[in-house]
Amino acid sequence: MPSYTAPTRDARFILNEMLDLAGYAHLPGFEMATADVSDAVLGEGGKFCAEVLAPLNRVGDEEGCTRHEDGSVTTPPGFKEAYTQFVEAGWGTIAAPEEFGGQGMPHALGFALEEFISSANQAFGMYPGLTNGAVSALIAKGSQEQKDMYLPKMISGEWSGTMNLTEPQCGTDLGMIRTKAEPQADGSYALTGTKIFISAGEHDMTSNIIHLVLAKTPGAPDSTKGISLFVVPKFLVNEDGSVGERNTVVCGSIEEKMGIHGNSTCLLNYDAAKGWLVGEENKGLAAMFIMMNAARLGVGVQGLSQAEAAYQNAVAYALDRRQGRALTGPAEPEAQADPIFVHPDVRRMLMDAKAFTEGMRALCLWGALQVDLSHKAETEEEREKADLIIGLLTPVIKGYGTDKGYEVATNMQQVFGGHGYIREWGMEQFVRDARIAQIYEGTNGIQAMDLCGRKLAQKGGAGIQAFFTMVGEEVEQAKGDEALGPIAEALGKALAEQQAATMWFMSNAMQNPNHLGAGAHHYMHMMGIVTLGFMWLRMAKVAQAKLAEGGDDAAFYETKLATARYFMDRYLPDVGAFRRKIETGSDSMMALGEEAFATAA
Amino acid sequence: MPSYTAPTRDARFILNEMLDLAGYAHLPGFEMATADVSDAVLGEGGKFCAEVLAPLNRVGDEEGCTRHEDGSVTTPPGFKEAYTQFVEAGWGTIAAPEEFGGQGMPHALGFALEEFISSANQAFGMYPGLTNGAVSALIAKGSQEQKDMYLPKMISGEWSGTMNLTEPQCGTDLGMIRTKAEPQADGSYALTGTKIFISAGEHDMTSNIIHLVLAKTPGAPDSTKGISLFVVPKFLVNEDGSVGERNTVVCGSIEEKMGIHGNSTCLLNYDAAKGWLVGEENKGLAAMFIMMNAARLGVGVQGLSQAEAAYQNAVAYALDRRQGRALTGPAEPEAQADPIFVHPDVRRMLMDAKAFTEGMRALCLWGALQVDLSHKAETEEEREKADLIIGLLTPVIKGYGTDKGYEVATNMQQVFGGHGYIREWGMEQFVRDARIAQIYEGTNGIQAMDLCGRKLAQKGGAGIQAFFTMVGEEVEQAKGDEALGPIAEALGKALAEQQAATMWFMSNAMQNPNHLGAGAHHYMHMMGIVTLGFMWLRMAKVAQAKLAEGGDDAAFYETKLATARYFMDRYLPDVGAFRRKIETGSDSMMALGEEAFATAA
Repeated sequence: MPSYTAPTRDARFILNEMLDLAGYAHLPGFEMATADVSDAVLGEGGKFCAEVLAPLNRVGDEEGCTRHEDGSVTTPPGFKEAYTQFVEAGWGTIAAPEEFGGQGMPHALGFALEEFISSANQAFGMYPGLTNGAVSALIAKGSQEQKDMYLPKMISGEWSGTMNLTEPQCGTDLGMIRTKAEPQADGSYALTGTKIFISAGEHDMTSNIIHLVLAKTPGAPDSTKGISLFVVPKFLVNEDGSVGERNTVVCGSIEEKMGIHGNSTCLLNYDAAKGWLVGEENKGLAAMFIMMNAARLGVGVQGLSQAEAAYQNAVAYALDRRQGRALTGPAEPEAQADPIFVHPDVRRMLMDAKAFTEGMRALCLWGALQVDLSHKAETEEEREKADLIIGLLTPVIKGYGTDKGYEVATNMQQVFGGHGYIREWGMEQFVRDARIAQIYEGTNGIQAMDLCGRKLAQKGGAGIQAFFTMVGEEVEQAKGDEALGPIAEALGKALAEQQAATMWFMSNAMQNPNHLGAGAHHYMHMMGIVTLGFMWLRMAKVAQAKLAEGGDDAAFYETKLATARYFMDRYLPDVGAFRRKIETGSDSMMALGEEAFATAA
Repeated sequence: MPSYTAPTRDARFILNEMLDLAGYAHLPGFEMATADVSDAVLGEGGKFCAEVLAPLNRVGDEEGCTRHEDGSVTTPPGFKEAYTQFVEAGWGTIAAPEEFGGQGMPHALGFALEEFISSANQAFGMYPGLTNGAVSALIAKGSQEQKDMYLPKMISGEWSGTMNLTEPQCGTDLGMIRTKAEPQADGSYALTGTKIFISAGEHDMTSNIIHLVLAKTPGAPDSTKGISLFVVPKFLVNEDGSVGERNTVVCGSIEEKMGIHGNSTCLLNYDAAKGWLVGEENKGLAAMFIMMNAARLGVGVQGLSQAEAAYQNAVAYALDRRQGRALTGPAEPEAQADPIFVHPDVRRMLMDAKAFTEGMRALCLWGALQVDLSHKAETEEEREKADLIIGLLTPVIKGYGTDKGYEVATNMQQVFGGHGYIREWGMEQFVRDARIAQIYEGTNGIQAMDLCGRKLAQKGGAGIQAFFTMVGEEVEQAKGDEALGPIAEALGKALAEQQAATMWFMSNAMQNPNHLGAGAHHYMHMMGIVTLGFMWLRMAKVAQAKLAEGGDDAAFYETKLATARYFMDRYLPDVGAFRRKIETGSDSMMALGEEAFATAA
């Protein structure tokens, strides 16, 4: 069975040394997240993940969730007990607002823990993860009454939350939603319709489930401008806050999926279920995007999390399994064979994974810090800049992070050879679980269009310009340095390739928007690599400074520098190839009509 | 449930128009494979695959194989009946030698059918596929008595075959085998040991199973120079050819795998099982490589097959599913939304798949023709050249073909959005089934080392030189042509990048063989792209000639030209990136020791 250790040293490096959270102690919430506190959260939280959640990962996969005739759902053995422990320890409350019982600490810290939870057990982590998405929407758009009624118990974890968007006929295109919300005399609405793919839609872990549901009111426009958001509790809430009557929303079935079997993915039938409007009528899309953006960052973390868990096990296997000899001569002549760790192609896969997981961790936590700063920075200008940057990078974190996370999980399975294909080793589960992250909360093709079709042009391109300036300045600063110089030079070249591709879009997309669509996915990957390179340059800079100080843990910092060099050698060359592909435009991609795709017998 | 149509039109294009099999009618076996005959084989065989095998693909995945207490194994419902039909129709005998009851036709034709079988049902196709591997070894190394005893019934399909290499402690490194073969007074051997991952190791579809087993005789050298090959029938064969006493080889368990559940992957226990030496003692590795090379080409076809099956279903879904609007304005304004086929990112995935499957089909069939020519060409020089070329390309077909096949299957699943993750749609099965092909018959890392460490240098580099000349000449011929010129130019540039990377290996690998190992996987992919580009240039040339003739089916040929252009636009740019990665050598890849990979809490 796979094992898992929370990479707390690396998270501490990012939070304390690279991001210097202590330097933000003048901002609300940050003052609590001292190095001592965050080390304790990471240490204890990491232990909980490794000891309680990770051992349930295979169980969840093997046993899955069971729906009973009355529509109730039982989670896999051990999940409920683990969830109770999770709630008691408050692991879900780190970054939630104090006003509603949260601990009010930075998202950067909360996100570090989210990675550990998801690495240990992605299917489990989705239960509190979905609650977080629903919480964000209620915080942003709920009435005070709704906030008071739902948030404290959702934040504590006593109740969980869901996001109900998809219907059989509509996923991406939410304008096609058919679920109806009929206004009632008491100010509530009666919701009727069918929602599918609802993660954590029904289960036995909490005493109530708060569904946030997109639906249409009578006469609403037949587009995304006609959808409204409703809160629909599984059990109606009495005035004293206790759980009352059962609402008429029922799980009709559980989906049989490729993976994440530990999470109950439900078809929910709403039969005049009682719900209440959240925010304004017909403004549901904006509210949905608040949930969605929070969720998308969380999904990016899932890409990292499965790559990390798979990587740790691949390293262990590569050091244990002996086959063949090092190309440079036997590494352990007394043994019958060398560990496969000596083979360059095994090392290629491990280094690729290491460069991704550490770079992606830095990106996720730095991204979470931007979320914090977008709310809490002192000046409007700083808040706006942070908001722009994280808006721009959200599709990159989600799209690139999960595509690459899946690739890394697959490669780590490959390290195991034939054993990787056998279920009991657990490696194939990482691959199956990682796969969903490329699909849900907007497929990665949608992320690419969000990035290129919306974010690049937003506010006259202010976001991407700020990004270019930020990376460019980091490159310029490091250029003269002996150790950092070559890394900066390589990143500078890659940045120039991205800038050229951006210019190409600007010059060509107006004339034919398909030119943008045809390059969007490549652009998202190109930007993912450049952004990770930016993180690696920053990490290398910190590592070099630490080495110059001559303190402890030199090996850790040397490793960072070596991995940064690997990143520049083996990741950055793809950026130029993406640019060349983008610049071929959409002509050859869109040349063929549907008949050309038919299989002729 | 997914559907499947055998792409016979495309296979006929390759066999008849591109490879011009009729032009080889002076060679033995080819005279039988007239266009009429091969069209009939493809047509009827394709129908059998679509109508009989494809409907069993999901059943095989859901039901899997069942091992009973006595060690017997039942295949999924319908498999046995389908196999009986398969044998009766003689679909496994197309390219087998007439001497032993085969039809003696070209492998190029047999391979086309193999793709259809594997697309329809990869797990099913493995049963006759493994038999083929065992047959190749017996043809090459068996005694006349062994050939007469086993081959007719294996070729007819009455009996099946297996390859027994892997043991718990050894997969790639066959020198570590522990299975013992003790010589007996009657000239036979008693084999004792445990073999794992034995595909089709035990089942109920044939009246006998002929195991080819690697084992060590007493006192054999403790390396790959000490392994011998044995034939060990499940039932001993009486002198009259009938099935006799049960041999002491028993299935101890069936592996629980990620996919290919319809194939019984067995742990086999040999307990003094009666076997006979095939070929010479201690020369088992060479015999094994004969099986292996045949099997590797077959595995390459599996990569193609799952990509093709997934592609067909993704096309159908993309034309049916409606979400959003074309970027250039509504394509079907009267409908509520456009088919997702209009979106460039969906088209990107479909075109990527189309360019791969058609290019890979051409490569597999052209490769199979080289196998034929290596045996049957008129001059020793031609036979040697064909042998060199297919030896060089076998790891590329297996390694690149299955890596890219998995990627395409994954992308085709992506086209389905959330539905792709749900089992009932069948797309996730294509991904799980495709995954094994990157692993078995030598992981793709091993393929890369076979290519770079052995094949590049073989006979003083004669194989790769012949390849460069062949591709270079095709490029030169096409350069002046208006339609083909740009395609040829792009391929010529990619070829030059591959040549430069080859030179880099030559200049640097002697000094440090890790430089070779660190670039081998990239080189294999680079060469896969160049080789597919070569196929696309040849297909484009044929298509253009057909268009110039002005006959029927102009749309088919126009589509070939357009797809060739897409290939050049979107595949070839990666070749330069691979070169740049290779030229960074192994320094950053091998810089870190094992402690640098430990997870620090």
